[in-house]
Amino acid sequence: MKTDDQTDDIQAPSKAGWPARYFSVIFTAQRTLSDEDMYSLTSERMVELAQQQPGFLGLESVRGEDGIGITVSYWRDRAAIRAWRIDVEHLAAQQMGRQEFYSWYHIRVAEVVAHRTFDASAAVDSQPDASMFDESMHDPGGDDSGDKESGHKESDGTTS
Amino acid sequence: MKTDDQTDDIQAPSKAGWPARYFSVIFTAQRTLSDEDMYSLTSERMVELAQQQPGFLGLESVRGEDGIGITVSYWRDRAAIRAWRIDVEHLAAQQMGRQEFYSWYHIRVAEVVAHRTFDASAAVDSQPDASMFDESMHDPGGDDSGDKESGHKESDGTTS
Repeated sequence: MKTDDQTDDIQAPSKAGWPARYFSVIFTAQRTLSDEDMYSLTSERMVELAQQQPGFLGLESVRGEDGIGITVSYWRDRAAIRAWRIDVEHLAAQQMGRQEFYSWYHIRVAEVVAHRTFDASAAVDSQPDASMFDESMHDPGGDDSGDKESGHKESDGTTS
Repeated sequence: MKTDDQTDDIQAPSKAGWPARYFSVIFTAQRTLSDEDMYSLTSERMVELAQQQPGFLGLESVRGEDGIGITVSYWRDRAAIRAWRIDVEHLAAQQMGRQEFYSWYHIRVAEVVAHRTFDASAAVDSQPDASMFDESMHDPGGDDSGDKESGHKESDGTTS
């Protein structure tokens, strides 16, 4: 059931060199109608800054036409998340976010306990379906018994 | 520092009645150019089905113009996630997903350990900034010392 990871050339965050345990920050937000230029500038700068933070692993971000956006960033540990949270330039951006950019937002910190991935292009030459589905997710008991360490096989050579 | 939750009337998932511990499933995917009607039908049906699953708490979903989408669903425990994962109709949809809808995807299961929220409309009558920011996130040590139970105050009356 276990196959090697087949996620080369995907645009999602890399898993190369990612630790066995890591954390996600799920940021869900509704944009106001405030100036898009200022928002874009700030947003791009924050992504640039975040990428320079120790412990930053990757980031996925999507905004829909209705102004609702989801950004998920990945971090080595909670200390890294906290350090980023209190970064001076980031704090200023957060204040702008509350005053200008967002009508509401949620920030959830969540520890990744399992990860599965699929890549159609990597699966072309292998068997259909089952084998093109990287089973790096373990959930043997099907309950919340906390087998946190077993859910990971982050060892492919993917680039982000 | 602690204020009551001020997230009424937000469109993000409700926290009313959410358990102190819960899990997220972060689904990141790239759509192929396959038929949009079939995809929409399937996608909508899956949301409908998921909502009927025991332990389902909420869902946020955004797709950008480039076809990359992020859907985050929230669940009471991993047993609920597993039950949903092996739902027969969902299994068929997953197969369609791999054969038709997605060129790649990632699925990450992550345990939510902290949650903060902001709602501009709820903050209008209170002090600027600090107090409009629901500090239900605790991260006292700033490290990964695992104070998982303390990060939650999910007791507002928000509707989803």
